[in-house]
Amino acid sequence: MAKGRKKLKIIPLGGLGEIGKNITVFEYGEDIIVVDCGMAFPDDEMLGIDLVLPDTTYLAKNKERVKGIVLTHGHEDHIGALPYVLRDVNVPVYGTRLTLGLLEYKLEEHGMLSKCHLQTVTQGQTINLGVFRVEFIRSTHSIADAVALAIHTPIGIVVHTSDFKVDYTPISGESIDLARFAELGKKGVMLLMCDSTNVERPGYTMSERTVGETFEEIFMNARSRILVATFASNIHRVQQVVNAAAKYGRKVAICGRSMVNVSNKAIELGYLTVPEGMLVDIDKIKNYRPEQLVIVSTGSQGEPMSALTRMALGAHRQVEIAPGDLVVISATPIPGNEKSVSGVINELFRKGADVIYEALADIHVSGHACQEELKLMHRLVNPKFFLPVHGEYRHLRQHANLAQGLGMEKERTLIMEIGQVLEINSSEARIRGTVPSGKVLVDGLGIGDVGNVVLRDRKHLSEDGLIIVVLTIQKETSGIITGPDIISRGFVYMRESEAFMDEVKQVCKEAIAKCQGKNCLLIKNTIKDILRDYLYHKTKRNPMILPIIMEI
Amino acid sequence: MAKGRKKLKIIPLGGLGEIGKNITVFEYGEDIIVVDCGMAFPDDEMLGIDLVLPDTTYLAKNKERVKGIVLTHGHEDHIGALPYVLRDVNVPVYGTRLTLGLLEYKLEEHGMLSKCHLQTVTQGQTINLGVFRVEFIRSTHSIADAVALAIHTPIGIVVHTSDFKVDYTPISGESIDLARFAELGKKGVMLLMCDSTNVERPGYTMSERTVGETFEEIFMNARSRILVATFASNIHRVQQVVNAAAKYGRKVAICGRSMVNVSNKAIELGYLTVPEGMLVDIDKIKNYRPEQLVIVSTGSQGEPMSALTRMALGAHRQVEIAPGDLVVISATPIPGNEKSVSGVINELFRKGADVIYEALADIHVSGHACQEELKLMHRLVNPKFFLPVHGEYRHLRQHANLAQGLGMEKERTLIMEIGQVLEINSSEARIRGTVPSGKVLVDGLGIGDVGNVVLRDRKHLSEDGLIIVVLTIQKETSGIITGPDIISRGFVYMRESEAFMDEVKQVCKEAIAKCQGKNCLLIKNTIKDILRDYLYHKTKRNPMILPIIMEI
Repeated sequence: MAKGRKKLKIIPLGGLGEIGKNITVFEYGEDIIVVDCGMAFPDDEMLGIDLVLPDTTYLAKNKERVKGIVLTHGHEDHIGALPYVLRDVNVPVYGTRLTLGLLEYKLEEHGMLSKCHLQTVTQGQTINLGVFRVEFIRSTHSIADAVALAIHTPIGIVVHTSDFKVDYTPISGESIDLARFAELGKKGVMLLMCDSTNVERPGYTMSERTVGETFEEIFMNARSRILVATFASNIHRVQQVVNAAAKYGRKVAICGRSMVNVSNKAIELGYLTVPEGMLVDIDKIKNYRPEQLVIVSTGSQGEPMSALTRMALGAHRQVEIAPGDLVVISATPIPGNEKSVSGVINELFRKGADVIYEALADIHVSGHACQEELKLMHRLVNPKFFLPVHGEYRHLRQHANLAQGLGMEKERTLIMEIGQVLEINSSEARIRGTVPSGKVLVDGLGIGDVGNVVLRDRKHLSEDGLIIVVLTIQKETSGIITGPDIISRGFVYMRESEAFMDEVKQVCKEAIAKCQGKNCLLIKNTIKDILRDYLYHKTKRNPMILPIIMEI
Repeated sequence: MAKGRKKLKIIPLGGLGEIGKNITVFEYGEDIIVVDCGMAFPDDEMLGIDLVLPDTTYLAKNKERVKGIVLTHGHEDHIGALPYVLRDVNVPVYGTRLTLGLLEYKLEEHGMLSKCHLQTVTQGQTINLGVFRVEFIRSTHSIADAVALAIHTPIGIVVHTSDFKVDYTPISGESIDLARFAELGKKGVMLLMCDSTNVERPGYTMSERTVGETFEEIFMNARSRILVATFASNIHRVQQVVNAAAKYGRKVAICGRSMVNVSNKAIELGYLTVPEGMLVDIDKIKNYRPEQLVIVSTGSQGEPMSALTRMALGAHRQVEIAPGDLVVISATPIPGNEKSVSGVINELFRKGADVIYEALADIHVSGHACQEELKLMHRLVNPKFFLPVHGEYRHLRQHANLAQGLGMEKERTLIMEIGQVLEINSSEARIRGTVPSGKVLVDGLGIGDVGNVVLRDRKHLSEDGLIIVVLTIQKETSGIITGPDIISRGFVYMRESEAFMDEVKQVCKEAIAKCQGKNCLLIKNTIKDILRDYLYHKTKRNPMILPIIMEI
């Protein structure tokens, strides 16, 4: 049979060796399907960048072969790149109701909703996409309606957990479908792709429900206004705030654009249940006494423009922090956000609020499986090969170690980089070849127009600023007509350093004098070289130097 | 008695509402003493800044009244500003042997050692400085030879713990002198100033000795080369590496400039003991087999230029990471460094090394007291008033709460901001008035010449780059002679956007056409306004726009 000789190709285009922009390509013969299509947030080196997309050149080149994009849940790192990628590769998108509900918002913002083909699936459903049969397995994560995938292929079954935790007591719906994983394991699974985010943490991730218990305690004792900041997408968390508010007779006001959007969508779709008359418009909170209110807001990561940050800085239009307010930050800072979150906490304390954050109480749980949960998944699925996904290199390595600790042979644990191609048939799996992959930077409306040169310039400008040397010269003789004038930005404060700038001007004059009769480029380079040495010697700084010479 | 009516003034110039640059002024009548004089590291907003100093204008203005500067230990955040501050306020500096040994290096680097007056004290000693009697109490911290202070003043005793932990089994020397704190408490202490760094952590900080036990286990099992990265100043940690190496027959090589400097000084002064013949020059490590070696290096914070980071990137001259190398990162990332440390760990794994870091084993302990240790200190000293120090606002607030939880009245717990003046006599303490305080930024050789305007420009340039519009005009008629030419840096990659730059040029031309007969400033502002709107509309970016007009 010809089919038997073909191989399944798996190509991660994001999410390995990094946190975020999760996207994986599955390919067999002529058929391609894609799992997830997420964005990532820029790191500190990417100055001025708004968000980061995966490089999907490979999909664009093969777009007529792509049967569809399958989504596991509605987090930004799983759906955030779709408004960009669907422009080039407009194929059907499959996801559960809430996942597609959140995606609709994004596509609408980009004016693309009417052009896209969204297909709702339910947990437990199976669909056919070309040669692939994709099964959506009920899962639990820090967002409702999450699924894992069993991808039935001609060479065998691939189980992709996506982000998950084993929550035996989730807030709504049923628990993760462990029985189905076990059943697949019994049948025989070729490859397990499994979430590595929390592989360094021993034990179990606590159930989302434990946070509700802490909320109840806090609400029971509070005598003032309560503000809870959390991730907009964590609808179960919001539900638990609503439940505690209902129990202790408080009204709920929702604050922050994404919190309002997601909550509305979740209420509309039935994922968030709020008793009649309990929701209060944020503009109307003045009508209630502090102890009658709880405000749910964005800003748990200290994001500069978020509702909570603006409240902390006294710059929020509707909510002013008052002494006695109780602020609960129901989240952990994502690596890189520690300082912003800490800054917000300090400002809230300064304004007289009490602040409860993770160091002080159990007001957050992770959405990802810890070591014991991962071991459970490995044992249930019992795969032939293992590919750790969703994590930095260290996480992938530790996850491979964990699998080997469970008895899997080293040769069957595969650590991949994005862009590499994994080829599997029924007996072997090997990494062979690469496709284009990487980061596409979005800055304002520009997609991919900011590259390394631009970032290097921004970095240079950010560290020592710039000095512009302007002069006009006579074209024939190179004689100076006007200038040199010196303009600086981000270098030193000009008003206090006029004398220094006069010296700089003098240095430029001497540099120009050395270039009599030379061409413009040579004069520029001479000014740059001499001025760079002079400035470094005098200040140990290295500003960008831009000589501008007008010849007339 | 006239003396009775005078008040003790305490003025923190740094270290409150922030981490770092610890410095406090004590003033009674005409006499001033200063406790510590530290620097801080720049935060993310301080683009291009190398380090941050406290504003010591107040000391410079009153320098003839300053009797001396008293140091509690040799960490940068307690001694790092001295090379700058001693230029203006050259008074005697008192500290223990190791503290002054480390300070000598710094002063030598700044060519100031011969001009300064350093006076060695020992743990337990008392000195007179004007009206003050300063007692150096034996303490334990993550650096050897640390002291707390009892400052005997005419209005009573002030106990300043500085940074400390209660380590019952320190590596060298004796444990913290709890008996002396108790004795002072019995006698009656007016004010306690106490370290707040770890106030959010319940329980006790583990003894430094526990890290040694982990080292022993690691060394016992290792079959390859070991690298340990830690803070250069943590001599006890280095001693424990040396001890484990001695036990398991490995040679020790020291790597990284500050590690070499501090170790040499510590060996010279007898704080670090290395068996004869055990130290190996880093250039000679090729002469030993991997399992005969341990390398101790800097870089535990992922600092870009540090030894470990360069090793991870394959850019270190003497040490190349080889598969099988075991790297132990014996430190916790300081807030803000999480991503750099993680990057180094990923690269080490990629090169085939095994990496042990805090998430995986007990290879680090803090140098600061946790809640139970703080409670012990409060109970022993039993002060009349309490001033939490060394921490962000949240830490100071939590520390005040902790004191109140021990029964202290709220009115007697004081939360201060830097620059505020605390006045105490024998019956009351109140905050009254302020002196100049804040941050002095050091950028290269410049001290304080980078202020808000410069930082704002750097920030602006870093986010969207700049566009320069150059033209020459005829002075009388404002007619264009050359230009407009467009130069951009850090905005978009020019080669790919020539057509766009042509549009920009056209927009500028139209703007200029609107200004016929107008003066230069008006033309500039018109170009700026029109171009800003155009660019934002087209790109949603807001680069700095610099119109340069030469009139001839």
